[in-house]
Amino acid sequence: MSKEDQIIPRSQDFNEWYNTLVLRADLADYGPVRGTMIVKPYGWSLWENIQSALDKRFKATGIENAAFPMLIPMSFLEKEAHHIEGFAPELAVVTHGGGKELTEPVAIRPTSETIIGHSYAKWIQSHRDLPILINLWNSVVRWELHTKLFLRTLEFYWQEGHTAHATEAEAWERTKIMLDIYANFAINEAAIPVIPGEKTESEKFAGAERTLTIEAMMGDGKALQSGTSHYLGQNFAKAFDIKYLDVDNIQQFCHTTSWGLSTRFIGAIIMTHGDDKGLILPPRLAPIQTVIVPIFKTEDEKSIVMTEVDKVKKELSDSGFRVKVDSRDNLTAGYKFNDWEMRGVPTRIEIGPRDVKNNSAAVARRDIPGKEGKEIVTRAALVERVKSLLNEVQNNLLVKATKFRDDNTLTVNSYDEFKSAVEKGFAKVWWAGDGKDEAKIKEETKATVRCIPFNQPGGNGTCFYTGKPADKIAIFARSY
Amino acid sequence: MSKEDQIIPRSQDFNEWYNTLVLRADLADYGPVRGTMIVKPYGWSLWENIQSALDKRFKATGIENAAFPMLIPMSFLEKEAHHIEGFAPELAVVTHGGGKELTEPVAIRPTSETIIGHSYAKWIQSHRDLPILINLWNSVVRWELHTKLFLRTLEFYWQEGHTAHATEAEAWERTKIMLDIYANFAINEAAIPVIPGEKTESEKFAGAERTLTIEAMMGDGKALQSGTSHYLGQNFAKAFDIKYLDVDNIQQFCHTTSWGLSTRFIGAIIMTHGDDKGLILPPRLAPIQTVIVPIFKTEDEKSIVMTEVDKVKKELSDSGFRVKVDSRDNLTAGYKFNDWEMRGVPTRIEIGPRDVKNNSAAVARRDIPGKEGKEIVTRAALVERVKSLLNEVQNNLLVKATKFRDDNTLTVNSYDEFKSAVEKGFAKVWWAGDGKDEAKIKEETKATVRCIPFNQPGGNGTCFYTGKPADKIAIFARSY
Repeated sequence: MSKEDQIIPRSQDFNEWYNTLVLRADLADYGPVRGTMIVKPYGWSLWENIQSALDKRFKATGIENAAFPMLIPMSFLEKEAHHIEGFAPELAVVTHGGGKELTEPVAIRPTSETIIGHSYAKWIQSHRDLPILINLWNSVVRWELHTKLFLRTLEFYWQEGHTAHATEAEAWERTKIMLDIYANFAINEAAIPVIPGEKTESEKFAGAERTLTIEAMMGDGKALQSGTSHYLGQNFAKAFDIKYLDVDNIQQFCHTTSWGLSTRFIGAIIMTHGDDKGLILPPRLAPIQTVIVPIFKTEDEKSIVMTEVDKVKKELSDSGFRVKVDSRDNLTAGYKFNDWEMRGVPTRIEIGPRDVKNNSAAVARRDIPGKEGKEIVTRAALVERVKSLLNEVQNNLLVKATKFRDDNTLTVNSYDEFKSAVEKGFAKVWWAGDGKDEAKIKEETKATVRCIPFNQPGGNGTCFYTGKPADKIAIFARSY
Repeated sequence: MSKEDQIIPRSQDFNEWYNTLVLRADLADYGPVRGTMIVKPYGWSLWENIQSALDKRFKATGIENAAFPMLIPMSFLEKEAHHIEGFAPELAVVTHGGGKELTEPVAIRPTSETIIGHSYAKWIQSHRDLPILINLWNSVVRWELHTKLFLRTLEFYWQEGHTAHATEAEAWERTKIMLDIYANFAINEAAIPVIPGEKTESEKFAGAERTLTIEAMMGDGKALQSGTSHYLGQNFAKAFDIKYLDVDNIQQFCHTTSWGLSTRFIGAIIMTHGDDKGLILPPRLAPIQTVIVPIFKTEDEKSIVMTEVDKVKKELSDSGFRVKVDSRDNLTAGYKFNDWEMRGVPTRIEIGPRDVKNNSAAVARRDIPGKEGKEIVTRAALVERVKSLLNEVQNNLLVKATKFRDDNTLTVNSYDEFKSAVEKGFAKVWWAGDGKDEAKIKEETKATVRCIPFNQPGGNGTCFYTGKPADKIAIFARSY
């Protein structure tokens, strides 16, 4: 790899490493309108794999996909007081259409609760129409000032689910089911050991009664909110008149939920697993699971090697793996090794003339650098070995990320300990403070309550900040 | 079905039949901003099946998916003269973002050639970077005045593909490959016998050198342009400076293509196959391929029947079919039959207590109404029979639609014959006219050249309109 192609090592400058890596690995590029993002084929293929893993899980619980317009009347957004307060500063507003000024300006959706509320009110008459379980795969626009590819962009891609139920219990149950799906997906597909929990009053979604979240620790110790599920109570039902006739023919307001996971999750994957050499993609989501690099010098060697490479490719594809052959003829094998390592392909197969002669191949795993991660495999065992290696890499990434998270999560009892803990990771504390305390702590340390984890130790303690008796643990951290 | 639930028969009022059916079948609904559309789960599921069938075909030819921002600087759109001329009157313009007026207003994409051109110019340096073969699944906004669900809406869903090539030959080849894919998809998946051909100068895409199209005949004899593939020549390459260094290190402009198929194709499916009773969906794309209606009166019967229904459902699902059990307990079996017929499910299975006792089931096909399309099948043969029936329905729909198209395509030699031909279908004519002739014919008859079909008889004739010698046949029709 030439010098200009090299990325800044992660250990040297985490922020610059991230910014250059996203571009160099061909995941994304900047769009021409400030703060917008182009997701390139390699990045989009990763997103398609994320979509497919989530979509399967959604559908298994009865969720159906649909599509709602991106244009929403401004008046809709103003119907739920907290909602407009949260989103007004970020709206993109269309004032002209078809060469004329519009009588009522329309917003590009920042999220779809309001247009969903309007439609559900029309569609729901009786308890027989419930529940409605709809998910949308789309993009939304929020006019952000400080943007960063995948993490915060003017337009971003996501899914937003919206459900309506007859009872509070059922809506709350759905809120929890969807968070469980996110946690299960993050852990088992992305190898990210997220912490599921609940947001505090001051951190919950604009318009929600309760917000559940999965929080992940990035390689620099900061937190990334990676997916949220909101119990909206009857807030939107009352604002949009979503009512049903119950079995006794009495009109009731519905209880609604919404939940979302976005392309920012790609940022979480990059910053959880990446290292100095570049990306490391979890095998279950990687666009390319194994890359074959042919090695040869002469035309004769090329012909022998490529015949074998094509066979191996076919065997692996037929076995269901996502395989790529790097047949670029203007690059050295060494360059290619670095290139695919930088792009995070979890395993690499090298086949040269000697391998063909010896009925063997070299296989390297991305998560263990150098000779230690490389082995010679017999040709007959190759497919099985790639399969087992992909599982090993997948498991190892989760183990490593879990260890890193735990090593950088400190249980602290005083504000001084807290301050140094959030410099490098998560602080786990007994907590009995309120919104004002949170604001003060944020001002002084930049750390916020990431969540009140579901997994509580039980018992009681003393709040590290207020000194009051506390019956729950909170996780604080700086965050993206 | 109650009277208010009934749809207007197709034979009575084609237009009203379409409008009410789209709503009644739960395919789509109107959005709150005039001209926008909500695609409901049943309609979206149909679109997902269309997407999957196309996406597979695209990827098999090397196309990769990506995502580009919806917001495009107005200045981009103005760079290609014909392009802006075509799209300026339909733009939605964002003038405010984040509470402030923007220095340069941005448009919501009406299509992405310009932002693609800008990006490809950045990405392409050498012939080694070519071809670029990218497809986007997204939505675009065109501020239409006269809207109709699926056929013409302010925002619609589609795929838009954009490729860049080193040579004209390769780009033109790609233009044809993509049209072939559309034609193959339309015929084999949607059972719509489209006519592939080329647009005339006056009907081609704004900014294209040549536009290829597939044209379908709807049930009222009007044409629907169902997918287009454009050879853009070097128009966008020159407007956006998309250049590459060739093998001799000389700078050359690229040749580009674009091609798209949209949710209007759902309109084509509805209007090609539907009948007085409602939709008829082609089995390969139908969200539900077979619906099971349990029939019982007493609780005892219900228990016996539902046990069997669950077994049948599992067998069919396990065999890869999309199955639904209609277990609504407040509706009669008769209502359910009508309901699923209206919603176009291609086959129906009825299971009652006698069927369970006799080890049999009744199976009905949607495309043949009444007793003629219904048969008793032994339980053991049920899955195989459903499978073969779905194939029969699929084939029959194509045969019927082809016959209808051919019966309503008249070869005409005079303008008088022409006028009556386009009242009820397609007119096939020898053609040697120009854009002015087309405009005059359109004004007088509302018919336009749909395409110059690839499939030409050869030889020569006399142009029906100008009387000049002609060496090609054209298809004229009124269109959506």
